[in-house]
Amino acid sequence: MATSPPHNPIVTLTTDFGQRDGYVGAMQGVILDICPGATISTISHDIPPQDIQAAAFVLYQAFNYYPRQTIHCMVVDPGVGSERHAVAMRTSHGVFVGPDNGVFSLILNATEVLEAVTLTNSRFQLARVSATFHGRDIFSPACAHLAKGVSLAELGPPVVELTRLDFGARLHPDEARIIHIDHFGNLILDLTAHDIAGVRQVAFKIGHTMIRSLGRTFSDVDEGELLAYVGSSRDHVEIGLRNGNAAKALGLHLNDVVQVVRELD
Amino acid sequence: MATSPPHNPIVTLTTDFGQRDGYVGAMQGVILDICPGATISTISHDIPPQDIQAAAFVLYQAFNYYPRQTIHCMVVDPGVGSERHAVAMRTSHGVFVGPDNGVFSLILNATEVLEAVTLTNSRFQLARVSATFHGRDIFSPACAHLAKGVSLAELGPPVVELTRLDFGARLHPDEARIIHIDHFGNLILDLTAHDIAGVRQVAFKIGHTMIRSLGRTFSDVDEGELLAYVGSSRDHVEIGLRNGNAAKALGLHLNDVVQVVRELD
Amino acid sequence: MATSPPHNPIVTLTTDFGQRDGYVGAMQGVILDICPGATISTISHDIPPQDIQAAAFVLYQAFNYYPRQTIHCMVVDPGVGSERHAVAMRTSHGVFVGPDNGVFSLILNATEVLEAVTLTNSRFQLARVSATFHGRDIFSPACAHLAKGVSLAELGPPVVELTRLDFGARLHPDEARIIHIDHFGNLILDLTAHDIAGVRQVAFKIGHTMIRSLGRTFSDVDEGELLAYVGSSRDHVEIGLRNGNAAKALGLHLNDVVQVVRELD
Repeated sequence: MATSPPHNPIVTLTTDFGQRDGYVGAMQGVILDICPGATISTISHDIPPQDIQAAAFVLYQAFNYYPRQTIHCMVVDPGVGSERHAVAMRTSHGVFVGPDNGVFSLILNATEVLEAVTLTNSRFQLARVSATFHGRDIFSPACAHLAKGVSLAELGPPVVELTRLDFGARLHPDEARIIHIDHFGNLILDLTAHDIAGVRQVAFKIGHTMIRSLGRTFSDVDEGELLAYVGSSRDHVEIGLRNGNAAKALGLHLNDVVQVVRELD
Repeated sequence: MATSPPHNPIVTLTTDFGQRDGYVGAMQGVILDICPGATISTISHDIPPQDIQAAAFVLYQAFNYYPRQTIHCMVVDPGVGSERHAVAMRTSHGVFVGPDNGVFSLILNATEVLEAVTLTNSRFQLARVSATFHGRDIFSPACAHLAKGVSLAELGPPVVELTRLDFGARLHPDEARIIHIDHFGNLILDLTAHDIAGVRQVAFKIGHTMIRSLGRTFSDVDEGELLAYVGSSRDHVEIGLRNGNAAKALGLHLNDVVQVVRELD
Repeated sequence: MATSPPHNPIVTLTTDFGQRDGYVGAMQGVILDICPGATISTISHDIPPQDIQAAAFVLYQAFNYYPRQTIHCMVVDPGVGSERHAVAMRTSHGVFVGPDNGVFSLILNATEVLEAVTLTNSRFQLARVSATFHGRDIFSPACAHLAKGVSLAELGPPVVELTRLDFGARLHPDEARIIHIDHFGNLILDLTAHDIAGVRQVAFKIGHTMIRSLGRTFSDVDEGELLAYVGSSRDHVEIGLRNGNAAKALGLHLNDVVQVVRELD
């Protein structure tokens, strides 16, 4: 039983495929073959290979800007062909399709799951399913059929429990972990504006370097100077370098820890 | 004489332009200016510069997932401005537009050519044709006019013979050549599942490293271990490293040769 | 008061965001949420970070191939959150939206500005505007509302003077500056075909290397040889290496200077 399809179905893609090999092309071909009117929108194909945490964060900071009925296809799938489930879930803001490997952990925290299924119905998969490219053979067809108006329940039986990884969890109130480093070298911390509400002043210590307060935007400091600020990604605090690359300047990497010094009111 | 245009015309792009310079933007602008309703789908813009073999393989492993009436624009064109012909061909699965430099060799093997022309009719080119960017000035307008319903025959006179390069040819039954290395470092061989049908067991020797049998998918081996498997790209055999980069680990490059050891039934 | 929207509204994107972080995804989500029928076309997301000159050139060489009513969104914005204005301008060929930091200088030279406004009307911005990501919070919504038919005048008050940088200006008749180096390593000079009209012969000197005349296309020289030619980008003279990378071979960088030797008729 097909429900009425959205008028302008949108399918987003987030993968670790890069753009070199045509894997993304094959996925787009599958989607357009099944649902010719779909708008395909790239969130990223440059997730570091097999990096579930990076993929989770990138999707998390973009999905809520898309219309609520958008279908988000996520293919960062180191366990392809193994026992991990292929799933689709309808939430309070968006439909998500991909491997149940924890990559949706931040989405599960941020939305309400209304329905979730495993993608076992071969009617909505390619005729031949490879053991290594479910993005093309299972996830893309599922997205395209959903875009055409097929209901979630047709794709397979309900899932009771979805995999959650806790890479979003705070460690310690005096520490903040780098959960993402962006293209500009800005360091996104697991500390949010919410975590420091009511704090009179907050400072950040990285080795011998001290950032003494929160600024607002890059032009608050001189060129080449460090700045801590509440960033644009879900109110996470970020550390950046005006017209430079903070990660390189500080020699910091993903999951490194920054000291947080608070003065309470 | 225009034939009835496809309802949702799709034009794919495969180039070696990268995304940095806006060359791809200019091509898209040309296409959308001529055929505003076209859906433009990127297969790849990251083909290594002037690498006809890589381009041929990438297009070959993606094209058949697109709808049959899709128009595929290929611009890997080291001979731009020379005597090489600009061509368009209608096949049993897709229309292909690009330079006749051998980049369509694998498509010619995989499809039946129904009609092929050289792109000489200036009515379907930009008013000014540069000597160095036929992607924008000749190939994009041809694709857009075809998407609008212009017939192939209007674009120019028939081509008798299309250029075929034999980079797809097997060398020797005991050897397999690396014909593509993907973004993950997986090594795609010129050996296909068909070539080893009826073989009881097959092993692969790379220097002192031996892979003793074909597996199915990455989770069949431990992290950091090598695996040979029939890949998702047209049943070619691939060698990969679970959660790692086989090309880097083995120090192998495009066109390197792997020994194939067969035990017949 | 909304004017009649274009039938197939196109919004192009030119940014320095890369494709890794999902920033581009967030922008596309915003646009599609406000104007679901928009076609989003990427000109480039690989502008070097904060490089206004590169961004200006890339947009300049692509915009005129798009339909005249296209809306071009430009986000290379080192001064985000500072006093620099956010602007939108309607020109004789395209609507341009972005920071007033000089990134539109070449567009201002190439088109006639019919109307320009600052983007101050919060009704056409996201409900929460961050201090660091106006691409998502101000520029994308402005583009989407324009695509839907909102008039420029509704977005804010008129701008009297737009910022112009003179990175396009010629230095000296005997020198040419490298204003762009493309993905292939071709060197694009600030010298145009117009500048050397009426010159009988022109040669180029780079250190001890001499290119004795203008060629037409790469196949005019042997593999590995240098060529100067009137390129495909707005008639600028380029220096390239057949099937190679001229920038690497010559060790040249952006803004380096090449000697121009003319023989007049």
